[in-house]
Amino acid sequence: MSDRNLSEHREDDFAVITLERPDIRNTLSETLLSELGDALRRAGTSDARGVILAAQGPVFSAGHDFRDLNGRDTAAMTELLTHCRKTMTAIQEIPQPVIAQVEGLATAGGCQLVAHCDLAVAGESSAFAVPGGRGGWFCTTPGVPLARAVGRKRALEMLMTGDPIDAATACDWGLVNRVVPDAEVPNATRQLLARATRGSAASKGIGKQAFYEHVDLGMDAAYDLAVGVMAESSQHPDAQESIRAFLARKKRKG
Amino acid sequence: MSDRNLSEHREDDFAVITLERPDIRNTLSETLLSELGDALRRAGTSDARGVILAAQGPVFSAGHDFRDLNGRDTAAMTELLTHCRKTMTAIQEIPQPVIAQVEGLATAGGCQLVAHCDLAVAGESSAFAVPGGRGGWFCTTPGVPLARAVGRKRALEMLMTGDPIDAATACDWGLVNRVVPDAEVPNATRQLLARATRGSAASKGIGKQAFYEHVDLGMDAAYDLAVGVMAESSQHPDAQESIRAFLARKKRKG
Amino acid sequence: MSDRNLSEHREDDFAVITLERPDIRNTLSETLLSELGDALRRAGTSDARGVILAAQGPVFSAGHDFRDLNGRDTAAMTELLTHCRKTMTAIQEIPQPVIAQVEGLATAGGCQLVAHCDLAVAGESSAFAVPGGRGGWFCTTPGVPLARAVGRKRALEMLMTGDPIDAATACDWGLVNRVVPDAEVPNATRQLLARATRGSAASKGIGKQAFYEHVDLGMDAAYDLAVGVMAESSQHPDAQESIRAFLARKKRKG
Repeated sequence: MSDRNLSEHREDDFAVITLERPDIRNTLSETLLSELGDALRRAGTSDARGVILAAQGPVFSAGHDFRDLNGRDTAAMTELLTHCRKTMTAIQEIPQPVIAQVEGLATAGGCQLVAHCDLAVAGESSAFAVPGGRGGWFCTTPGVPLARAVGRKRALEMLMTGDPIDAATACDWGLVNRVVPDAEVPNATRQLLARATRGSAASKGIGKQAFYEHVDLGMDAAYDLAVGVMAESSQHPDAQESIRAFLARKKRKG
Repeated sequence: MSDRNLSEHREDDFAVITLERPDIRNTLSETLLSELGDALRRAGTSDARGVILAAQGPVFSAGHDFRDLNGRDTAAMTELLTHCRKTMTAIQEIPQPVIAQVEGLATAGGCQLVAHCDLAVAGESSAFAVPGGRGGWFCTTPGVPLARAVGRKRALEMLMTGDPIDAATACDWGLVNRVVPDAEVPNATRQLLARATRGSAASKGIGKQAFYEHVDLGMDAAYDLAVGVMAESSQHPDAQESIRAFLARKKRKG
Repeated sequence: MSDRNLSEHREDDFAVITLERPDIRNTLSETLLSELGDALRRAGTSDARGVILAAQGPVFSAGHDFRDLNGRDTAAMTELLTHCRKTMTAIQEIPQPVIAQVEGLATAGGCQLVAHCDLAVAGESSAFAVPGGRGGWFCTTPGVPLARAVGRKRALEMLMTGDPIDAATACDWGLVNRVVPDAEVPNATRQLLARATRGSAASKGIGKQAFYEHVDLGMDAAYDLAVGVMAESSQHPDAQESIRAFLARKKRKG
């Protein structure tokens, strides 16, 4: 494992993926993107009930590795950015809840990574930025999930200034779910993920997939999709068991 | 009225619909859904200027009645969920402002109901949850209006954990417009609805309908629709009267 | 310039457009709309790095001039509203960051103007309203950018009641980026715009345009667009310079 950029291990029901290149600020090199995509898909097909995405060192991730960018033409850049996009969207495609455990600075593609996670817990000293706009290469792709997390004027402020927002602001704006003292981030992450992974994993996976499919649609199309998914999933043994258990509880009480 | 699940009465300009099955936590049984849809449409075609949706007892509504779910196949479940959806969207289709008066717990379809109302006032001790995800049947349909009210990460937290958020959080996230001490909910509801029902009812109805049509569109398509509606509605006698009155006031002052 | 409704001047890198009709509350008359559209497009093709939109007097802008509305039929109203829409969307079409410097009340089309700006700074005593809904002509077109800035229930509260929200609420809801004491608005506006205009103006313009194109799309279509823009813009000399400078800095450090 020593030549890898990340580690994967299991903690009871959770798959924990940890970026382990603090020496290069956990930049999303091509090899790291491949490893991360593979690790996410591996967790997705495992019996883990939830996935934690963590990182070693003071920088959660600084986004692309500029050494990868050097000398690439448009076609080669498209290839890299598509690779990056596919790794990011793998977070949404796997059935389990994926939570970011943010202890430090998340910039550019690193901020994009946090925006893509289903849930996120951040330490008080962590911060979030999309700095390309104050240089020469505006963070357009990170802006895709960011705008959908924090809204227009706040996304534009981050994208145009490139300056970081602190963790409290990120929480206020909906980019992360919780801010806690730095030392409590691992525990708070596990507590939120434990709550997010109770019940039927099958039902949760169906629900997560349907959520990302309907959330971009107009209300009518969203309901068309949601009613179909909900009706079909009602026949799943876990749903049937929920209904039976509820009625049995009521009968005992009544 | 004694065999019904809700009451309808008029308070001056307002139609008040009150769910009156605290004994079964105001669950949205098929009969209640029918009665609620009918009551909403009746209010919609009446001369009421606004509609209050209230509920008796400590639970605003607990969503579907599990007794209705028992033994239904996919087709029968689709029918029930479509019935539910049509009742929910009736809130948006009628021309008057509809306000939820939330005094207690709103879960699953009950939370969906609050999310669909144009406006909502909640008591300090009220709470909101979509608990299916911690059981066996993820709350996909309630997630449709919920995600559009509170945004992605917050909707996912509620949907995946199934845990309730308190009223202050619901207000902070935009699910309700006001939180007030429990005893003040009826008054605060009426005060907000009074403010929301001033002026031309015809203009308000046109505006409400156009709002829900454009809000899901891209900016260009939204403006195409909005410019057409606004130009046409300018010819309404109430709009013409507004313009004349404004100019007359100016003339007197000037 | 004495017969004009606004002034244009340069402050170092910024183009400052100031509405100068406090006597008629900076209403968006046809001539003012024409002048504003022209001034924005002129700033857009100039070498200014950012644009400030300010207004003289206690009212930032009160929206349409009711004298313009008098006696217009649907076709003539469509023409006026289309004119207004084109002036508003010019804010988004020009490549530079446009910031609203709000010192006072912004109502109807004036509130719409603030909602359209990329960024906004407001004084503590400023306020925002879309009052048509409490009269006879619901503010449907202002509701287009407003709903996209503050979300559904908050937009509906403003549109249905017509009542103003204060600056702190506007900031909490994402309609403006900063609230500061009234006397500090000009400075705070310039400080935020200075931060928003660092780096490559070409890259910023490409990024701003792509942002408004992708923000209304579903995630997949948004990424298709964003990956293409980001790959192509990577070949811009300013992006290449950023990459080279970053690698040189690293080499020196390493």
